[in-house]
Amino acid sequence: MSHSNPAPPVPAGPVRPGRDARTALTPAVAAEILGGFWHGRREVNARVGIPQGARLLESAGNLHNLRLAAGTAGGAFQGDFPFMDSDVYKWLEAAAWQLGPSGTPDDGVLAAEVDRVTALVAAAQQSDGYLNTWFQVTKDGRRYEDLRWGHELYCAGHLIQAAVAHHRTTGAKELLDVAVRFADHLDSVFGSDRQIDGFDGHPEVETALVELYRETGERRYLDLAGYFVDRHGHGLLGGEAYCQDRVPLREQRHVEGHAVRQLYLLAAAADLAAETGDSELLGACERLWTAMVATKTHVTGGLGAHHDEEDFGDPYELPNERAYCESCAAVASVHWSWRMALLTGEAKYSDLIERTLFNGFLAAVSLDGERWLYVNPLQVRDGHTDTGGDQSARRTRWFRCACCPPNVMRLLASLEHYMTSTDADGLQIHQYATGRYTGDLLGTPTIVSVHTEYPWAGRITVTVEDGPTDRPWTLSLRIPQWCTGRTVEVSGAATGAAVVDGGWLRLERNWTPGDEVTLDLDIAPRLVEADPRVDAVRGCVAVERGPVVYCLEGVDHPGGGLDDIVIDLARPLTEERRPELLGGVVTVTAAGHRRTPPDDGWWPYHRSTGPAGAPAAPSDGDLVLTAVPYYSWANREDGAMRVWLPFR
Amino acid sequence: MSHSNPAPPVPAGPVRPGRDARTALTPAVAAEILGGFWHGRREVNARVGIPQGARLLESAGNLHNLRLAAGTAGGAFQGDFPFMDSDVYKWLEAAAWQLGPSGTPDDGVLAAEVDRVTALVAAAQQSDGYLNTWFQVTKDGRRYEDLRWGHELYCAGHLIQAAVAHHRTTGAKELLDVAVRFADHLDSVFGSDRQIDGFDGHPEVETALVELYRETGERRYLDLAGYFVDRHGHGLLGGEAYCQDRVPLREQRHVEGHAVRQLYLLAAAADLAAETGDSELLGACERLWTAMVATKTHVTGGLGAHHDEEDFGDPYELPNERAYCESCAAVASVHWSWRMALLTGEAKYSDLIERTLFNGFLAAVSLDGERWLYVNPLQVRDGHTDTGGDQSARRTRWFRCACCPPNVMRLLASLEHYMTSTDADGLQIHQYATGRYTGDLLGTPTIVSVHTEYPWAGRITVTVEDGPTDRPWTLSLRIPQWCTGRTVEVSGAATGAAVVDGGWLRLERNWTPGDEVTLDLDIAPRLVEADPRVDAVRGCVAVERGPVVYCLEGVDHPGGGLDDIVIDLARPLTEERRPELLGGVVTVTAAGHRRTPPDDGWWPYHRSTGPAGAPAAPSDGDLVLTAVPYYSWANREDGAMRVWLPFR
Repeated sequence: MSHSNPAPPVPAGPVRPGRDARTALTPAVAAEILGGFWHGRREVNARVGIPQGARLLESAGNLHNLRLAAGTAGGAFQGDFPFMDSDVYKWLEAAAWQLGPSGTPDDGVLAAEVDRVTALVAAAQQSDGYLNTWFQVTKDGRRYEDLRWGHELYCAGHLIQAAVAHHRTTGAKELLDVAVRFADHLDSVFGSDRQIDGFDGHPEVETALVELYRETGERRYLDLAGYFVDRHGHGLLGGEAYCQDRVPLREQRHVEGHAVRQLYLLAAAADLAAETGDSELLGACERLWTAMVATKTHVTGGLGAHHDEEDFGDPYELPNERAYCESCAAVASVHWSWRMALLTGEAKYSDLIERTLFNGFLAAVSLDGERWLYVNPLQVRDGHTDTGGDQSARRTRWFRCACCPPNVMRLLASLEHYMTSTDADGLQIHQYATGRYTGDLLGTPTIVSVHTEYPWAGRITVTVEDGPTDRPWTLSLRIPQWCTGRTVEVSGAATGAAVVDGGWLRLERNWTPGDEVTLDLDIAPRLVEADPRVDAVRGCVAVERGPVVYCLEGVDHPGGGLDDIVIDLARPLTEERRPELLGGVVTVTAAGHRRTPPDDGWWPYHRSTGPAGAPAAPSDGDLVLTAVPYYSWANREDGAMRVWLPFR
Repeated sequence: MSHSNPAPPVPAGPVRPGRDARTALTPAVAAEILGGFWHGRREVNARVGIPQGARLLESAGNLHNLRLAAGTAGGAFQGDFPFMDSDVYKWLEAAAWQLGPSGTPDDGVLAAEVDRVTALVAAAQQSDGYLNTWFQVTKDGRRYEDLRWGHELYCAGHLIQAAVAHHRTTGAKELLDVAVRFADHLDSVFGSDRQIDGFDGHPEVETALVELYRETGERRYLDLAGYFVDRHGHGLLGGEAYCQDRVPLREQRHVEGHAVRQLYLLAAAADLAAETGDSELLGACERLWTAMVATKTHVTGGLGAHHDEEDFGDPYELPNERAYCESCAAVASVHWSWRMALLTGEAKYSDLIERTLFNGFLAAVSLDGERWLYVNPLQVRDGHTDTGGDQSARRTRWFRCACCPPNVMRLLASLEHYMTSTDADGLQIHQYATGRYTGDLLGTPTIVSVHTEYPWAGRITVTVEDGPTDRPWTLSLRIPQWCTGRTVEVSGAATGAAVVDGGWLRLERNWTPGDEVTLDLDIAPRLVEADPRVDAVRGCVAVERGPVVYCLEGVDHPGGGLDDIVIDLARPLTEERRPELLGGVVTVTAAGHRRTPPDDGWWPYHRSTGPAGAPAAPSDGDLVLTAVPYYSWANREDGAMRVWLPFR
């Protein structure tokens, strides 16, 4: 679809730094994904995920709870958690992005559904702005008695984000009014009057309040967000890392505690640094991001090692089979990294976003859009005994704690806004997705079109459609961290002069509408190893191709499981386009064999064979290892899967 | 101490198979550990652990709760769990074993303490035999409403075991009367009348009821135990593996769910197989034991991989740093394996007992007897952030859920009973501890003395003190599974003719009092590797010497942490007696180096260097790796530790 209206002068997506914000980059003022890989995933999200989400919120009782709070229905509260409302808000946010100019053309059904749910939310709100159905219905309206676990402000945060999205995409004020009333109420309780000195055990309201400030211009919201961020870490909620209360964020050396909580808090810290120029907060964010990625990130971009408390482990504690890697943490990681990319202009943040999107994030939703993973392990063994429940390694239609599905929906629905940015010197392309992106270059609308079959092909064609013609400006293309070879042509001529500057290929010239840049990234499949301190995957390699991490699935390897497979590093990887497989993928094949399992002794440990190593393990002969993209696993049958492959 | 009384004609320890039981072996009728390694640990248990336990049960409120239930004290229930009483019972059992003839000579203080606590227990018991302070005090006496989590029968089981121990060692009936009243009550509710068709979510009462049958001859207790065991696995409690309710034990192919629950249930199954000749139950036990040890046992004997739900993982899922290995599971493993050893006569069960005792079990208590580990990880990283609480990797004085300390106490206090057995052909020595052991050989008291510095030295001297002289009989010595070299002499003459039969060295001859057997086990330090399917420790070795598994601690390796250490397999291990260190240990040293950490890039994964491997990692030069026994870790300072050492 195309738009005849002029692009608005401010960024269109979930993050809109204010005019005085200290960010290096400004997000696009308009963006559309029009084809290719992400277009397909977003179509499924629009056609299946979001409509089904509305039905599941009804059947799981979330909407019923709103009616209970409004007094328009009777019966019992449904669900086990004080954060049931947040599922509704995240769904509303997803729907709101979908209703925007870059969403799938709507037949009016979704807009009506949003209005209907908005009315339920508005009706449930109390006269002073408070809104949480759990406390209103099951706790006689007692409030803020359990900030550690109550999630009241967390829910407010998601409401605010939904309201900002709806207002930003449609101009509608109904939901924004509800959010503003709640925010004003929060400010009256926790703000300058300080009736309560505290914060929510699950950060989320902080980043939402900054965005509400950006949307409304109301400075109190920014101040309240800053207050909340800095009250963490002083023991007000008991001092646990789980609640981000062990140490002030400004003093933290490593991300810790519950991964999603940590990441939402860091997103807020980045927002605050942007709006206030707080260099200490910025420094903490940079330090924590680098330490996190270098020591606590799975190869899929997955974050949060422990099932227990859903928290980060120690540095390099990155278990394979019991990787937790909550889907919500992948969403939160993208949120934070995007804010960091805007703040600093550094490409590495968008490198992590890319890796997360194509792997740890996208694995969370099935190809048909109907089933979900809450946790994203990197290995499932032969004969795995699944415990079911939210932490199952099997895709599930909905969860008792259904935080992840609508979180994935809202990121997919707003994904076009994470692709490009501008600064005073030009336009930056962070992610490669076929589409049309408009930035504001010192007042001049600057438009580029991208065409690519990425991630299956490494060729990206960028056409400059509009922009300043009276002066040179710089088109910056991110050269992904994984990429070691590339060529670039501008309008058919090789440009050996292009500079790669910290991950950015900088093309500075006088651009003319119609100029075309062709970037060819070497996307040949490759094997990667981990830092040797990642004990869990010693002696193993993972298969990658472009930004995509691969895995083996049992279904492709009949005749024995995956637990005995060994990859042969001496023989080359090959690739094959498989348009009929898993919605269309490129598979990678490697040579390997299956170890003949050791004798069935009763004790699984044996004397070391010394430095020469064991004699070559007996094998069942050559075996073709067929790797499929990790994001596509568990879409055919339940079975074994592994990302890391032993080479001995 | 010595005993002038004739040995009783029945086994003296916690497991007393009935006269008609189908066990291959019969435990000793008297046993004393008189010196050496275990004597030292038991002295600390008697001198520090058990007396301190009584004080901590007072300060943690467990005894207060008994008074509350009896109506002799006022106030609130102390503690968060319905199984607070079981801590008292396990302590009573430990004290009861301590009061027996083989315990440390008592000055009357402990006996008085036991009588005092017994009186508290008796006073708290309700008139119909029911006793659980949590339900009596906090639930208005409502009973059996939550069999899944209530632990009422679990507590009854520990009460029964304590009572049997006290009766068996002292002949006193007070506690046994309480236990019998509770057991009769249970039989009236769950027994033939079947007011309730169910079982306890935490097995324990089953094995206790079998032992009460053995102690009292009352067949109803055996029948009730059999009923409970077979009601598991039919979904009565919801069908979860956690509660051992997913599948009937007779059909199980792998141990599963909560490790301690599974192991206590299996101990009961072995008891039932012994008493009833149920070959199907025996077959299930043999199958499950073999599968468990071959696929779900850490090198320390630790069991239960997951923090989450304290459960077993999948086969070969044996994480290193997040190993759970609950101390109680080590105790339960010894309980079950001993029953299997008696049932089958096979040495492998005592091999696992040995490995568990010297490693996964003994690590649970500090050398000074004052602090405990609930979980027993095999790795703690440099700069580990500890969350505190029961699952801390730091030794703790007591726990909110204090199941482990008194469990360790009761096994230490009864340990002499796991050492020897007899059958119609002779006497078997399962474990090597300096002491005096009396078996009944077809009516003839048969006494052996053992002298050894095991595990520090491999020489074991066994003197036949008494036994049949009119016919040949067989002295059987277990040749440990880890041992590949040994010599044996009888009264100074080499006996090349000795047969090793499934782990047993069989010495059949006409024994004369004073005959002396000298067994020399090759105890030189060695390196072991894991089955290649144990992904967590690929490319690593562990140091062992005799039955002792070793580890590195940070405190012995200043100048950098343990995360970068690499062991050099080409250079020999050496050992050193260190009487001044950690209560007296033999250390093992290996050569190695520290990897120079990779460049501080922001992404911890890199292209594989291919089959030739990476060029030798730069190193800081040679480093002496000093390994100490795993059981002794965390007795000097909190810091890093690792059992598995990378060799690349």
